[in-house]
Amino acid sequence: MVIGTLRHANRLAVRSVAVDALKRSARSFAFHSTAPADPSPPAGASESLAAYYFPNEPEVPRLSTSVPGPRSVEILKSLDKIYDAHAAYMVCDYQNSIGNYLRDADQNLYLDVYAQIASIPLGYNNPALAAAAKSPEMIDAIINRPAMGNFPSLPWESILQDGILAAAPDGLNKVWTSLSGSDANECAYKAAFIYHRTRQRGKGNDFSELERRTTMENTSPGSPDLAILSFEKAFHGRLFGSLSTTRSNPIHKMDIPAFHWPKAPFPALKYPLDQHEAENRAEEDRCLAAIETILHEWESRISAVVVEPIQSEGGDNHATPYFFQQLRTLTKQHDVLLIVDEVQTGVGATGTFWAHEQWNLDTPPDMVTFSKKFQAAGYFYGNEELRPSIPFRQFNTWCGDPSKAIIAREIVKEIHAYDLVARTSHVGKYIYDQLEELQRTFPQLMQNLRGKDRGTFIAWDTTDLDTRNKILTDMKKMGINIGGCGARSVRLRPALVFEKKHADVFLDALEYVLKQA
Amino acid sequence: MVIGTLRHANRLAVRSVAVDALKRSARSFAFHSTAPADPSPPAGASESLAAYYFPNEPEVPRLSTSVPGPRSVEILKSLDKIYDAHAAYMVCDYQNSIGNYLRDADQNLYLDVYAQIASIPLGYNNPALAAAAKSPEMIDAIINRPAMGNFPSLPWESILQDGILAAAPDGLNKVWTSLSGSDANECAYKAAFIYHRTRQRGKGNDFSELERRTTMENTSPGSPDLAILSFEKAFHGRLFGSLSTTRSNPIHKMDIPAFHWPKAPFPALKYPLDQHEAENRAEEDRCLAAIETILHEWESRISAVVVEPIQSEGGDNHATPYFFQQLRTLTKQHDVLLIVDEVQTGVGATGTFWAHEQWNLDTPPDMVTFSKKFQAAGYFYGNEELRPSIPFRQFNTWCGDPSKAIIAREIVKEIHAYDLVARTSHVGKYIYDQLEELQRTFPQLMQNLRGKDRGTFIAWDTTDLDTRNKILTDMKKMGINIGGCGARSVRLRPALVFEKKHADVFLDALEYVLKQA
Repeated sequence: MVIGTLRHANRLAVRSVAVDALKRSARSFAFHSTAPADPSPPAGASESLAAYYFPNEPEVPRLSTSVPGPRSVEILKSLDKIYDAHAAYMVCDYQNSIGNYLRDADQNLYLDVYAQIASIPLGYNNPALAAAAKSPEMIDAIINRPAMGNFPSLPWESILQDGILAAAPDGLNKVWTSLSGSDANECAYKAAFIYHRTRQRGKGNDFSELERRTTMENTSPGSPDLAILSFEKAFHGRLFGSLSTTRSNPIHKMDIPAFHWPKAPFPALKYPLDQHEAENRAEEDRCLAAIETILHEWESRISAVVVEPIQSEGGDNHATPYFFQQLRTLTKQHDVLLIVDEVQTGVGATGTFWAHEQWNLDTPPDMVTFSKKFQAAGYFYGNEELRPSIPFRQFNTWCGDPSKAIIAREIVKEIHAYDLVARTSHVGKYIYDQLEELQRTFPQLMQNLRGKDRGTFIAWDTTDLDTRNKILTDMKKMGINIGGCGARSVRLRPALVFEKKHADVFLDALEYVLKQA
Repeated sequence: MVIGTLRHANRLAVRSVAVDALKRSARSFAFHSTAPADPSPPAGASESLAAYYFPNEPEVPRLSTSVPGPRSVEILKSLDKIYDAHAAYMVCDYQNSIGNYLRDADQNLYLDVYAQIASIPLGYNNPALAAAAKSPEMIDAIINRPAMGNFPSLPWESILQDGILAAAPDGLNKVWTSLSGSDANECAYKAAFIYHRTRQRGKGNDFSELERRTTMENTSPGSPDLAILSFEKAFHGRLFGSLSTTRSNPIHKMDIPAFHWPKAPFPALKYPLDQHEAENRAEEDRCLAAIETILHEWESRISAVVVEPIQSEGGDNHATPYFFQQLRTLTKQHDVLLIVDEVQTGVGATGTFWAHEQWNLDTPPDMVTFSKKFQAAGYFYGNEELRPSIPFRQFNTWCGDPSKAIIAREIVKEIHAYDLVARTSHVGKYIYDQLEELQRTFPQLMQNLRGKDRGTFIAWDTTDLDTRNKILTDMKKMGINIGGCGARSVRLRPALVFEKKHADVFLDALEYVLKQA
């Protein structure tokens, strides 16, 4: 074992805390803290922003019960009578969680590298978000929720400009807001279909009587047989349109009617990438050829391709910038829109604010969808023609939620103020390097490590589903809340305030678990 | 004109205020106020709860600019560059709106009988909701948004029990939460499809390999050809599944692919109801026969029927309890689920908390969906088998939003504490009677008044689309914010704190507008 001394000391600490629950005091780990003594806003990425935000953040997990604890079990049993709690791992005490540490109902404290399925941006009880939550603007947004499409609020424009749009990808300076990732994707699909048919019809031309009649019957041409092309193992949500583009797991889709839309293969790259460049290029070319065939030959016309920069739920499947550049070229050649689903990859976790910024495209995607860590949801676009020229086509009662857009604004401000994208990129490199060492040490249990230079958006394969699930459970018992993806992968999805000191706790726990496995 | 003297005095007042904008002071209208001198919580429905909640609520609208005013126009022009504002009527200053009065960016004050498309329950800046919005529980819910399906929060069970479920319809004691009415309906449809196929498969039986494979291809049997039956003129939302059941207007559906699902005729009743009983019964029987034919003969199996108690967006189309009783019987006979969409009718506006309570069904609907005035969204159900036995089938990242459920809890508490359902029923009867008089006076401009004994959920037809739209515009110019529905109808959708004194202002303005028309 040639893992750094500090980590080693920390590993022993974590192990003893987790196994002998609470027998050692947090005091004894102070020597390895990287937190500055002075909790003022740090200037550089080498200091601890977490210590500034969360002066009382624990240094290690603390478990005093089994996982889930008896209180969680009791509450879930009762909750389940009125609300489906089949999928619940534990009940959480969010008011007493802090920073990167999640507290459960039994007062166990977990270092959280899953962060509410990748949706907590700045840690639990972040003081900047708390201040925004208490503002008169927020109270207004909560108690006077507007029908924003008909009666937008006075501050709406500035909330968008200073918030969601202050983080807009290059070339996409407009936004439509919705309520969730699924909803965001479906609104983007609707925009694509409307754009497609409007161009076919010729701008300014009204709907025909046939179109008006047939759409009320759910038949063509009013309700046309158009399609969205998605990828094998993609996840784009669970509403009826988005679910038709989701292809990651039968459990999501089973028994739900779906549109007859096509799917293309997504590259299955070999790792490490630098040792398989030629094979991986061939694999990506194979997928690109398949996409082109579908665009040519699918029984219905395809209006848009939707793609995740890293297929997350489906197993953290990556492709290279080359693949996405070629995909952009293909969509341009075939006059098909490109929708990039950044619901999970967006908002700073991958080394750039948006993961697709790493592709260096000649022209931006047509739409980029967001949700999760942004709290607000929706899609960015640039082309004015993606907005229906007739009102009430892209519309619903609320057209978004200002309370979420206010939180998104604070998130953007904090990310920019403390350069959280760079910090996350930095700590991600450290984690990746350490995991690479662990992979060398445990080649049976850890394979296909991925996420190099992709911030903390890191994952690896285990042996099989059962082994993966046992590792996740064992990690929880060590006080690390961690999630899986795909058939046998483990994924890291910490908040943007996850630092080296947190990484060390995680890495030591993982090393311990792998050794016991 | 035999309209009460108070209303007449008030009418003159409103007219002069609206037309001569602000020339008269609010003081001069004090004589007709029904507000009690003491602003303590009123005990009976005869006193003014609005005066208690909103001691500074205006007594009349006040317009000082054109509608929309120059400030609204300027802001909308700028907003529209980044956010689709095509459908916006005006920009609103919600922080300075109060009770039933909506303030716009030009500081015009409108009496609001539209209430953000029927989604404001207790008036603007309701102090009870403001207190809830400031609570530590709310701040926690906003800044630590949980992935509720995996990691439910400590207070979640009590938030549901004391809130949404404290208003559950009889027999439906469980809830699944979502984010909007569309989303709620789609989750209910998914529950129906899963229930249907699970029973076909036989409880405990696993998915077949064929099912697993085909669902990943979006084809049957894994993604089965099952359908939801909805009604002509229905509105159930705008996502891909819900939009396939929406049939109210081509503008909602045009160019969006749809499932080939059936629609049935919805009764077109003649008014007044008591003069057309036989004809209306025959009309309802005609529709019931058509439904039965579809249930027998539709090309795919139907898993559920979805119906609004009053088709709202589609024109405020009513049916009698007989129709719904027969529909329940038919769905039972054909082993098809009944989903009642109470997104717009729910939460106290129709004379009961849920409109379907007025049907006196032998067995409750299988699911009842809600959103809008509840702020929280989702569906109620009673049958345990409507919950998938395998986790992660009805699931998504957030599985609802505790911040909205906290607001819903406060809404339920206030409705129960002040008997707002009875109050709304009471004022609705007054409005209906007065509108009946106006209908007699203006038989060309007002027809088919509907909503007798349905609280403030009242609508009527005008001559045609253009006339309707002119009336809506003229009403706005009189300081009344009001909405339309269907092809030529006007609908009332005030908050539950709308009282006789507000009704008088509205009625006088309407009479004035009708006289000028």
